[in-house]
Amino acid sequence: MKQRSEVENVKKRIITISREFGSGGHRIGEIAAETLGISFYDQKLLEKIAEETGFTKDFIEETAEYSTAKNSLLFNLVINRSLNDCTEPTPADTIYFAQAKIIKEIAEKEACVIVGRCSDYILRDRKDCLNVFIYSDEEDRAHRILERYGKTDKPIQKRIADKDARRKIYYSHYTDRPWGVPQNYDLCLNSGSLGEERCVKMLVDVFKSFE
Amino acid sequence: MKQRSEVENVKKRIITISREFGSGGHRIGEIAAETLGISFYDQKLLEKIAEETGFTKDFIEETAEYSTAKNSLLFNLVINRSLNDCTEPTPADTIYFAQAKIIKEIAEKEACVIVGRCSDYILRDRKDCLNVFIYSDEEDRAHRILERYGKTDKPIQKRIADKDARRKIYYSHYTDRPWGVPQNYDLCLNSGSLGEERCVKMLVDVFKSFE
Repeated sequence: MKQRSEVENVKKRIITISREFGSGGHRIGEIAAETLGISFYDQKLLEKIAEETGFTKDFIEETAEYSTAKNSLLFNLVINRSLNDCTEPTPADTIYFAQAKIIKEIAEKEACVIVGRCSDYILRDRKDCLNVFIYSDEEDRAHRILERYGKTDKPIQKRIADKDARRKIYYSHYTDRPWGVPQNYDLCLNSGSLGEERCVKMLVDVFKSFE
Repeated sequence: MKQRSEVENVKKRIITISREFGSGGHRIGEIAAETLGISFYDQKLLEKIAEETGFTKDFIEETAEYSTAKNSLLFNLVINRSLNDCTEPTPADTIYFAQAKIIKEIAEKEACVIVGRCSDYILRDRKDCLNVFIYSDEEDRAHRILERYGKTDKPIQKRIADKDARRKIYYSHYTDRPWGVPQNYDLCLNSGSLGEERCVKMLVDVFKSFE
């Protein structure tokens, strides 16, 4: 069989996880990190970005999922360059630059799992990253979201569609790549049909197989 | 962790492989089938469709990858309903209906790996299928294509783009789904970064994990 030893044989130190809302990707990443005995970055990453930029964790979380409606308040406040001075970065830019710097530092320092925040793109030049996308069917995601966050006034399908749209627009804004297409990743796992446990095992096994 | 036992615990008997041209998906499927000791359907499937429809294997292969140019001879001959009588299926339809029937019969009869021909869609109601998409980066695909088929007058990037476009249009014509999006599959593997051997091992391991 054809081998590309230069890529295939580089030991992996980092797993980046991109995931659909409600896919369980966060939990899968957390348990994989525990199993592998490596660090897990999600809230810890937000804390570091908050420390670096002075913005609150909530605001940082929101900027990564701002409304796709171009006339929304948040969009205009943090993203829309036309309403800004143009001579300096928007708050969203400031956050993105800080998170890119922090993610690169973390990757340099230690083996870890990093969830979201364009980490697959930010670390795209490193050969020691395993980039994973976790997704599921709508029924499974709805079930998981209701279990975790409960009901709201908004129908669950709308909550899912909005969140997907926000993640897509944020990702493509900063990476110039479409979000959630296989070609960005080494591996895409359907947590709905495979189940979370099997996803964790596959992640752990494939990570170790590079050793 | 959340379990959906009704989906996750159904034993798998069939692997369907959709793949990008030059991704090595065909070979990965073949070796996985060998390793698992189950049948492998690609040429054998074409032979059965040829037998059923009376069309040649070459013609059948071509209809699955006809030109996207709507004014191409092949498109008009086999696909374009407006040039046909509309009261009966086009040759491409006849082939598709025959392949759907044959693929369903095969799936009923034996454990196997089936490559291409919308088999993931045709068998979408079966819970014992593992649907896999295999893809790779352009450099890796170009390398594999040149190794296997050699150079032609057409630049390699154009050959890849044409073939991708053809598979996409064929798939969405008959399935009404976009081609190559993760949501159609249980698992998507990047053969360029993971390597073919690792892809085979992952396929075999995950298939067995349902036992």
